[in-house]
Amino acid sequence: MNGAEALLRTLVAGGVDLCFANPGTSEIEMVAALDRVPELRAVLGLFEGVCTGAADGYGRMTGRPAATLLHQGPGLAYGLANLHNARRARTPVVNVIGDHASFHLAADPPLATEIGALAKPMSCWVATSRSAGSLSREVAEAIRAAREPPGGVASLVVPADAAWGPAERIAEVSPPSGPGAVATERVHEAAAALRSGEPALLLLGGRALRAAALEVAGRVSAAAGCKVLSEALNARIERGAGRFPVERLRYFPRHARAQLAKIRRLVLVGARAPVAFFAEPGGASSLVPDTCRVCRLAEPGEDVLGALEALADELDASEPGPLQALARPPRPEGPLSTESVAAAVAAVMPEGAIVVDEANTGGMLLLPRTRGAPPHDWLAVTGGALGLGLPVATGAALACPDRPVLSLQADGSAMYTVQALWTQARESLDITTVIYANRAYRLLDIELRHHTRDPGPRARALLDLGNPAPDWVQIARGFGVPATRAETAEQLTTELERSLAESGPRLIEVVL
Amino acid sequence: MNGAEALLRTLVAGGVDLCFANPGTSEIEMVAALDRVPELRAVLGLFEGVCTGAADGYGRMTGRPAATLLHQGPGLAYGLANLHNARRARTPVVNVIGDHASFHLAADPPLATEIGALAKPMSCWVATSRSAGSLSREVAEAIRAAREPPGGVASLVVPADAAWGPAERIAEVSPPSGPGAVATERVHEAAAALRSGEPALLLLGGRALRAAALEVAGRVSAAAGCKVLSEALNARIERGAGRFPVERLRYFPRHARAQLAKIRRLVLVGARAPVAFFAEPGGASSLVPDTCRVCRLAEPGEDVLGALEALADELDASEPGPLQALARPPRPEGPLSTESVAAAVAAVMPEGAIVVDEANTGGMLLLPRTRGAPPHDWLAVTGGALGLGLPVATGAALACPDRPVLSLQADGSAMYTVQALWTQARESLDITTVIYANRAYRLLDIELRHHTRDPGPRARALLDLGNPAPDWVQIARGFGVPATRAETAEQLTTELERSLAESGPRLIEVVL
Repeated sequence: MNGAEALLRTLVAGGVDLCFANPGTSEIEMVAALDRVPELRAVLGLFEGVCTGAADGYGRMTGRPAATLLHQGPGLAYGLANLHNARRARTPVVNVIGDHASFHLAADPPLATEIGALAKPMSCWVATSRSAGSLSREVAEAIRAAREPPGGVASLVVPADAAWGPAERIAEVSPPSGPGAVATERVHEAAAALRSGEPALLLLGGRALRAAALEVAGRVSAAAGCKVLSEALNARIERGAGRFPVERLRYFPRHARAQLAKIRRLVLVGARAPVAFFAEPGGASSLVPDTCRVCRLAEPGEDVLGALEALADELDASEPGPLQALARPPRPEGPLSTESVAAAVAAVMPEGAIVVDEANTGGMLLLPRTRGAPPHDWLAVTGGALGLGLPVATGAALACPDRPVLSLQADGSAMYTVQALWTQARESLDITTVIYANRAYRLLDIELRHHTRDPGPRARALLDLGNPAPDWVQIARGFGVPATRAETAEQLTTELERSLAESGPRLIEVVL
Repeated sequence: MNGAEALLRTLVAGGVDLCFANPGTSEIEMVAALDRVPELRAVLGLFEGVCTGAADGYGRMTGRPAATLLHQGPGLAYGLANLHNARRARTPVVNVIGDHASFHLAADPPLATEIGALAKPMSCWVATSRSAGSLSREVAEAIRAAREPPGGVASLVVPADAAWGPAERIAEVSPPSGPGAVATERVHEAAAALRSGEPALLLLGGRALRAAALEVAGRVSAAAGCKVLSEALNARIERGAGRFPVERLRYFPRHARAQLAKIRRLVLVGARAPVAFFAEPGGASSLVPDTCRVCRLAEPGEDVLGALEALADELDASEPGPLQALARPPRPEGPLSTESVAAAVAAVMPEGAIVVDEANTGGMLLLPRTRGAPPHDWLAVTGGALGLGLPVATGAALACPDRPVLSLQADGSAMYTVQALWTQARESLDITTVIYANRAYRLLDIELRHHTRDPGPRARALLDLGNPAPDWVQIARGFGVPATRAETAEQLTTELERSLAESGPRLIEVVL
């Protein structure tokens, strides 16, 4: 057994059975070892942002880390933006990066760079393997670090000589520690805040947005008469008919401040105190009103569900909150618009759908319109790095092969990791992608008009993706994914139904 | 005038008149200022690897830096792999990255990350602007750093408040310092090595591969009877008919060692002592025979041409070396192969062509077959980071709008930065792209068989890009670039001629 085989066997022993790979020469021993460790499935991505984003999607849906296999500093660099999203989503990922043989680095060969330094900003844990003999222990440690609540990116650099050298045994992988218990005082404090009689808000994040926790939050809300919101950017929300519905904190600071203006007691449940996504000239970072007191019921790595249950007990909150009724909009008719596309999605979304939302400005009506759709999961951009949607959809489909994935994707953002379509075709994944082709960096256009009353033609041209307009039908077919363009709301609805009824990937371009 | 406008005006004052941009909200003031500084041209890339690679191509052809405009840590991260190539090419680049307003970073908003730490491994200079008032001076310093011989990536992080705050004046940009003179002792030492009677080699790199320096190297070679080679990976070689021809050091260590086996005196001219690209088990890093003595005539940042001329004077080397005669292969016929594709390229390559070579294994015969083509430039992968070709071709075409660009591109590598095709279409650039579609990571396949006598099906599947085979004609058309597939050598030759005769981009897929 060499180090590479020990690496793969340790991953399997630690419950990691999927590896999103785009290997190079320094990873060739790991590639060769795949045939000796059939329990580990390797999925090829033709760009590293696909691999890391897919690992994020997989981890969001399973709670278990996938591994990556990336090629040296440049390969890691291409994957960093989606590792940033994974970090902000607190997704467990075992991020494996091959390097030159350790003795070769002193020669500064052309591909050499500081891999650990590049990994550090996105990682909760970084190490470089010392030798083939220690590699299994180091992999075990990476798995432990990735799974440490709330979860994070553990990056392990594997020099080629650690992969090709001899290894003896597979290290034991310690079982993941559970989330930390929440101290009773914090439950008392939250209960006191909710009982204060002042306008109060539960702000939910992370695991507080799963169905079981939401049900408890609904009871607390009913008992205490407090509002409930989710954070603005959420890794995964279990929502739809039969679940306690939460709106999310809005993206633009002025909107979010309006939502929070009257709140005097803010209880954080797996959430951070909200801050502006971007600061504005003269604006503050915090979105919390000065007159509002903040208390932290549970940190993201703590037992969020247990804390909510303890809070509900203390408040005698046994009456259920108002659960969402099944309510779909009628099948839309007429021209395509932000409104009719949202209605089409809501009209056909099947039970158990996994929705990956990187629709950006074109998708602003999606959440309200799908509120009463059958129960589903909603995965969104967490770190603000573009190019998350297609890869996360890819990973989610591999995590849950029996569930349909609906990938709602802005055109500008889709460009970053468009190669994910190829992996979707190669693995015959059941993903329906809707491209919102507004042919512009629309969000930037809004920001530009916000900053500049009268933007000039050169500035506007730089935000225009319509010259030439990408043809998403041809692009998708070029990557092996069947594709069509919908021209009306009726066509879109029919195409969505058709794609959801069949297996395998399909892309529908919607020109807005 | 705000900081953003001062930034743009300082770039122009420092001779930087092109900016490859993919902006976000934190860069919106720079976008808005474009209409007030029309001397700076902004070219949009839909992926940051396109922007940084294009800046590399532009810098290789002009010797002057282009600027980039990237969006925070994730945007920079997507651009790092091609900045790695630029760093290894010693290309001057002014790498501008927007960040959150400085007061906002303490809030750790979702997009925040350590931008400077990410930029450092690829940069010769990194700074974060302190304020709008100091921004112009900082830009001037970045330009100076990028142009400092031999050239490098200077990364400047611009917080949003430095862009939107008031600025008063434009800093003076000091003219670039020339390359350092080479001490006479080193010329004596090199001359002594060449006169020693032992087998000697001039190894040329960087600016020693421009026509004027090559002519002098040819005279030295003729006078001293020494061999001449180029480094394995070269940013730019001026070659073809009428120039002194050099072969390059080969990629695989066993081949390179065979080229160097008999050499006892190695004279480095703008080159580094050669090392293996990847080390092998039991192999050494250095490619220089133990019995060979190395002397450094000129470092990459020194006056390479002056040093060669002094050496030629000392050796009385006035007789020209053998210059390359014009010699093209006949127009090839029959099936497409590595051989016939190389012949087709050589048969039609026009004078003044800029060839960007990321053809990898499929292109191994390109250099020998095009040796006698009319004079042209050859730009290759320098840092081993894939995805360089299409962006470098984009930047080279913008640098030299009157010259045809021939972009010879392996399919696997093309995937990384395929979005460059859109910029080529948008800017109507005169680029002919040939996709070498062998539908595999062929180089890895070679390495796999080198490491493992009998690779298994799972390993082989991970290097196979044929399931499904990307359809490059559809992909290119989807991005707005006209495209065709050549089925025979005759068709390829005709399509190449057609594309070279017309303006604007075109892509030809060649299935190997």
